[in-house]
Amino acid sequence: MNLDFFRNRATVRVFSDREVPDSLVCEIIEAAAHAPNTGNMQLYSVVVTKSEEGRQKLAPLHFNQPAATGAPVLLTVCADIRRFGKWCDCRQAKTGLYNFGGWLSAITDAAIFAQQIVTAAEANGLGCCYLGTATYNIDGFSEALDLPEGVMPLVGIALGYPAEKEHLVSDRLPMPAIVHFEKFHDYTAEDIDAYYKEKESLAESEIFIAENGKRTLAQVFSEVRYPRDLNEAVGDAALRRMGVRK
Amino acid sequence: MNLDFFRNRATVRVFSDREVPDSLVCEIIEAAAHAPNTGNMQLYSVVVTKSEEGRQKLAPLHFNQPAATGAPVLLTVCADIRRFGKWCDCRQAKTGLYNFGGWLSAITDAAIFAQQIVTAAEANGLGCCYLGTATYNIDGFSEALDLPEGVMPLVGIALGYPAEKEHLVSDRLPMPAIVHFEKFHDYTAEDIDAYYKEKESLAESEIFIAENGKRTLAQVFSEVRYPRDLNEAVGDAALRRMGVRK
Repeated sequence: MNLDFFRNRATVRVFSDREVPDSLVCEIIEAAAHAPNTGNMQLYSVVVTKSEEGRQKLAPLHFNQPAATGAPVLLTVCADIRRFGKWCDCRQAKTGLYNFGGWLSAITDAAIFAQQIVTAAEANGLGCCYLGTATYNIDGFSEALDLPEGVMPLVGIALGYPAEKEHLVSDRLPMPAIVHFEKFHDYTAEDIDAYYKEKESLAESEIFIAENGKRTLAQVFSEVRYPRDLNEAVGDAALRRMGVRK
Repeated sequence: MNLDFFRNRATVRVFSDREVPDSLVCEIIEAAAHAPNTGNMQLYSVVVTKSEEGRQKLAPLHFNQPAATGAPVLLTVCADIRRFGKWCDCRQAKTGLYNFGGWLSAITDAAIFAQQIVTAAEANGLGCCYLGTATYNIDGFSEALDLPEGVMPLVGIALGYPAEKEHLVSDRLPMPAIVHFEKFHDYTAEDIDAYYKEKESLAESEIFIAENGKRTLAQVFSEVRYPRDLNEAVGDAALRRMGVRK
């Protein structure tokens, strides 16, 4: 598998009417479950939503974003320490995972599993869009999907056949922004200028700044798209769900 | 890319002497950075350790496990909210990510990025072993790699050419254990028996139980491999590193 497969992938937000057979969804998930995970405990699970009723129920929880409302299949990938705990209950053992260390393993396992689903789907002609909104309303998703204690929604995945063949590959930061050799090199102001130069000079970035009435792209991200209040609320809800905070 | 590629992958723990060129490591990381991430903020970074000195320093932090000591390349993939924060500092903006919600995005981004590195490496003939020990000694890795505030090691990856061509594909739980249709079905005792039947009947599981002087495989996992004390310590250190707990 050529590295260009990884370079040329793109998120798909508009899907065709073509049905995604249940058998294909299951095959992709089954193949993806061979991804590495913590001690082979597989601390994740996935809820598949295909019914009209189910998708309509999840749509507002995903803020009715078109990728969610237009996808024939919605997956909700969950960190799941419950199955392992139940296994212990049935086998004269006491789970040691009901604490943040256990959850950290489960969150990592679930994210790795989700990405393997996305890669397997993309390699088979499907398109995907991650829905980060799965953590924006943890209680809402838990209620809609009957998620019990020990199961936390981590990411949604909108899945379907792409409406169009060609997709715009997003910009990425240059390698020196991401890779550190031997030791972490801290980011200087000069580094930051160099790393973000291309992103900031994109036409879409300038439009983004103007539309939001801001002076810099960083202000759009930190004040409009990912503001502190939102992140604090998401974090508090997640910590409560994990029993780390009351 | 056939789904069998995903099904037949296996973790590699023994590496050959064949050198992994820097250019290949960089190409793999660069390709993997096209993985989806939160709002294209790319809340991750990776430290590449190839030097003899560097690998010797990390080995004990990875408990000298053979996969770590025998690999020509060690990657430490980190959740990184620092780069974005520095960008905000330089652009009249105030980051909203320094809270658990921000860290949850970063952990998810880092795990997805790590898995894309693993898949890209495996697709190019390399072998990988995740080193979960990266979170077992967060302070130690931070010191060894000069990780500043806002950067947390999440997973290590031992990388190299496999010593052998054939690798044993690990068992996985059957699909009904992982997939839920429309609603989460809670796990009953009968479900647990069915899900774990195959795993518990493996010859290696019986050896594992006997070697550890336990009665059930769940006891080996919960009392020996992933005991509560260990997970609590890992979780507390992570929460302190993220500033969520003092």
